[in-house]
Amino acid sequence: MLGPEIERLIQLLSRLPGLGPRSARRAALQLLKRKEALMLPLADALATAAATVRTCSVCGSFDTQDPCGVCADERRDPTILCVVEEVADVWALERASAFKGRYHVLGGTLSALDGVGPEDLNIPSLVRRASDPAVTEVILAMDATVDGQTTAHYITDRLAGANVAISRLAHGVPVGGELDYLDDGTLTTALKARRPV
Amino acid sequence: MLGPEIERLIQLLSRLPGLGPRSARRAALQLLKRKEALMLPLADALATAAATVRTCSVCGSFDTQDPCGVCADERRDPTILCVVEEVADVWALERASAFKGRYHVLGGTLSALDGVGPEDLNIPSLVRRASDPAVTEVILAMDATVDGQTTAHYITDRLAGANVAISRLAHGVPVGGELDYLDDGTLTTALKARRPV
Ligand SMILES: [Zn+2]
Ligand SMILES: [Zn+2]
Repeated sequence: MLGPEIERLIQLLSRLPGLGPRSARRAALQLLKRKEALMLPLADALATAAATVRTCSVCGSFDTQDPCGVCADERRDPTILCVVEEVADVWALERASAFKGRYHVLGGTLSALDGVGPEDLNIPSLVRRASDPAVTEVILAMDATVDGQTTAHYITDRLAGANVAISRLAHGVPVGGELDYLDDGTLTTALKARRPV
Repeated sequence: MLGPEIERLIQLLSRLPGLGPRSARRAALQLLKRKEALMLPLADALATAAATVRTCSVCGSFDTQDPCGVCADERRDPTILCVVEEVADVWALERASAFKGRYHVLGGTLSALDGVGPEDLNIPSLVRRASDPAVTEVILAMDATVDGQTTAHYITDRLAGANVAISRLAHGVPVGGELDYLDDGTLTTALKARRPV
């Protein structure tokens, strides 16, 4: 009844996190009602971002430049690496202005259930970066989930040979909580109170 | 920190119904992680729908053809018009397969508060369509809200001179409920039990 163009739009919108089939329909209608103000600008923003945003070859974050703005910023402390699961976590820490060093994005967590092993994550590149004599500390900022903590333990073992202090986020990260959902104050506190592993 | 391309994408996504700032960020990350599978197809679907979908000049619904598929379908009963507030309501009734006549989309409700008067809605065109001798019944399928019912009363008055039976949706529409959120069974029941005004 809706026609293939509208059906396809709804189907793609419903694959965004936070939008189910019903809200995807409402979003499609809103877009169709506001073609000039919303629909065409969004189409353009998507195409532009897809064409210009890339993965930083150093840390795994997203930016239009490679290395990314953080990696290229000489004012950022090059001696501390903060290891996170996802780019969302970099954004959360940057919003909190909680960290002045560099990042390393794993791209997920180890997961026996989902068949995710060390080679599926940016762990080899982390071991390389941590072996740089300029790096003196690695902060493991995984989510406080089973997979997150398993990954943190695995990385701790892998970095045993590197001459770096390893710490992890302290009190403030609720058990079972996901980093990206924390408020800025909690993130800042947890980072300041980080403790050695 | 994020760069203007990503900021713009998040800002536009956050204007979709159902997506706040946080879920817009998560959606943007999901899109950037899945450029080929999701981001570029969505950009294309938006541009294509914006270019091809138009408002039906007869009923006010959306379709790639004008008149729309329902208005052009000779199997649909031309003697009954179902008047709804929004295109979303047409979609809901079509999903329920609850109605075999034609539609008329008002494009909203009368609202003193928001300064919406009869000329801001597709009411003049409804009066014209209802005056067609081929039309014998007009079903007022407004939401069961104050503005929806005010609009239904106003239309009843405006159609007093037209030679049509006027009915409205019956039991089944919860008070304060919005049509687009009802299940198919409730919609079908309410439509079957419609009563004359
Ligand atoms: Zn980087
Ligand atoms: Zn139509």
